[in-house]
Amino acid sequence: MKNIIKIGIVGYGNLGRGVEFAIKQNPDMQLAAIFTRRDPKTLVVADNSVKVLSIADAEQYKDDIDVLILCGGSATDLPVQGPQFAKMFNTVDSFDTHAKIPEYFEAVDEAAKSNNNLSIISVGWDPGLFSMNRLLSQCVLPEGNDYTFWGRGVSQGHSDAIRRIEGVQGAVQYTIPIDSALEKVRSGENPELTTREKHIRDCYVVAKEGADKAKIENEIKTMPNYFSDYDTNVTFISEEELKANHSEMPHGGFVIRSGKTGEDNKHNQIIEFSLKLDSNPELTGSVLVAYARAIHRLSNEGATGAKTVFDIPLAYLSPKSGEELRKQLL
Amino acid sequence: MKNIIKIGIVGYGNLGRGVEFAIKQNPDMQLAAIFTRRDPKTLVVADNSVKVLSIADAEQYKDDIDVLILCGGSATDLPVQGPQFAKMFNTVDSFDTHAKIPEYFEAVDEAAKSNNNLSIISVGWDPGLFSMNRLLSQCVLPEGNDYTFWGRGVSQGHSDAIRRIEGVQGAVQYTIPIDSALEKVRSGENPELTTREKHIRDCYVVAKEGADKAKIENEIKTMPNYFSDYDTNVTFISEEELKANHSEMPHGGFVIRSGKTGEDNKHNQIIEFSLKLDSNPELTGSVLVAYARAIHRLSNEGATGAKTVFDIPLAYLSPKSGEELRKQLL
Repeated sequence: MKNIIKIGIVGYGNLGRGVEFAIKQNPDMQLAAIFTRRDPKTLVVADNSVKVLSIADAEQYKDDIDVLILCGGSATDLPVQGPQFAKMFNTVDSFDTHAKIPEYFEAVDEAAKSNNNLSIISVGWDPGLFSMNRLLSQCVLPEGNDYTFWGRGVSQGHSDAIRRIEGVQGAVQYTIPIDSALEKVRSGENPELTTREKHIRDCYVVAKEGADKAKIENEIKTMPNYFSDYDTNVTFISEEELKANHSEMPHGGFVIRSGKTGEDNKHNQIIEFSLKLDSNPELTGSVLVAYARAIHRLSNEGATGAKTVFDIPLAYLSPKSGEELRKQLL
Repeated sequence: MKNIIKIGIVGYGNLGRGVEFAIKQNPDMQLAAIFTRRDPKTLVVADNSVKVLSIADAEQYKDDIDVLILCGGSATDLPVQGPQFAKMFNTVDSFDTHAKIPEYFEAVDEAAKSNNNLSIISVGWDPGLFSMNRLLSQCVLPEGNDYTFWGRGVSQGHSDAIRRIEGVQGAVQYTIPIDSALEKVRSGENPELTTREKHIRDCYVVAKEGADKAKIENEIKTMPNYFSDYDTNVTFISEEELKANHSEMPHGGFVIRSGKTGEDNKHNQIIEFSLKLDSNPELTGSVLVAYARAIHRLSNEGATGAKTVFDIPLAYLSPKSGEELRKQLL
């Protein structure tokens, strides 16, 4: 391969590790460096031949890195890091606070454009692959309804909410889509579904010694926003069981468009996209890496500013030529 | 709406009608004319205020039509019409002879480019939406396997093959994916599936009076390429039943990517896209119409030549602005 794409990672949590593994599956890419806020010497990375550096030194590596993948969180890291690194590098991130995407886009666009860099924001699966399918299926079927179901998967936010309850030592919460609701949607019925009808919340909780389990269960089930609008199951388990059976990060979900076409709109047309993931951060990392390729190529063509998954032709994600793609995949 | 996109249709069979219905669902579009090889006066169209014209007169309407949607067949119509009309109009077609896509692309590209027109070929669902999902999921999960299942749906080619058998008056063949194979794929097993393990062929046949049904059944089941590699069911029914229960054109299918990620590739990741269509030609027509919008916009930006679904950013399919899309759908 002549032109290896040199990738940098900022932030080495679950997502950063997911990106590291994904890069290894793409022979046209190479991990050039991992930047961390921690003491670089303390970081144990999957491939110990990779440079681990302080995030403060990133700017010095501007010329050694084609695309920087930002693996920080959306709450506090990315709002600062997105615009900051877009001034120095081409960037890819997974900013996922849906309500704040417009302002984040503007900030990154401004920073990237004024420095002739190219960034793509909000890459992953939701926002990301799910958004692409919402857009595509709405354009194909303008008359219809959208349904998104999440799970079965771990919700970090809901697990954290349980952990903050007094007497709780550990907890994992799974969001589970309700099969009968999915089936109703797939049948073309176009049902109106309440929150309770779409998802179950399944909680595995380790109580501290002597804690009042009935009280914990009640606090979970009545917690507004997080649990009170759902049918919630609470199961108390041991610390060992939590570690043994609930330390993976599965997730997934379904985006379904149920539309109508033809004379008197008599025909039901269902478009469905779904994910079943053993590892949420590894899939997200894999999507980020595919878009890093696209950003590298578009940047070489002179594009600047901020983009989203809506703006990039699919061909740019692939190492194959247009000719190969038409022959093999169309 | 200020800039209505004026669409022309060439060929008014099932697909042409599907396009006609789809245009009505898109308020930024208008059907300007239908061109036919038949005597225009004999054509009964859904909206009788629409101009019906001879295909021979199409060139005179060059300035009245923004995008021409070619609804002819891939065997004999499109190889001629594609390059021919790409010289005069921006075009969209559903050319679906997979093996001949590269040469068809070249012919349309040359014709469009040398006349400053823009064409997109092979739009629909396979090739089309299925191809897009194959490409996207391969790029996200480079280590894995692709599976495509078709159905439950009517196969025109297989139905025609049965109708050519002596003693057969009418027939409809449904291709049906086998659930247990689908479930194996979804489980992440990465099975190797034979032809017989993936699809069943279900045939509804009307025999002529006095015909030898056992002989017909045997001829169907042993027909090479079409049926002999499959488990095939043959059910004899009356002409009335065929008309009453088998005159619709349902179809659909599944594109599944089963990949692996992470340390020692230990995590299964499944990406699935599926369609469940009451009307195959109406869904195909709806996809063609969405891409007509993209072609109109890209042509206004100065693009020329031939494109495929791999080359068009999804945002171009939508009447909404980038800002609206980021806010509402990302």
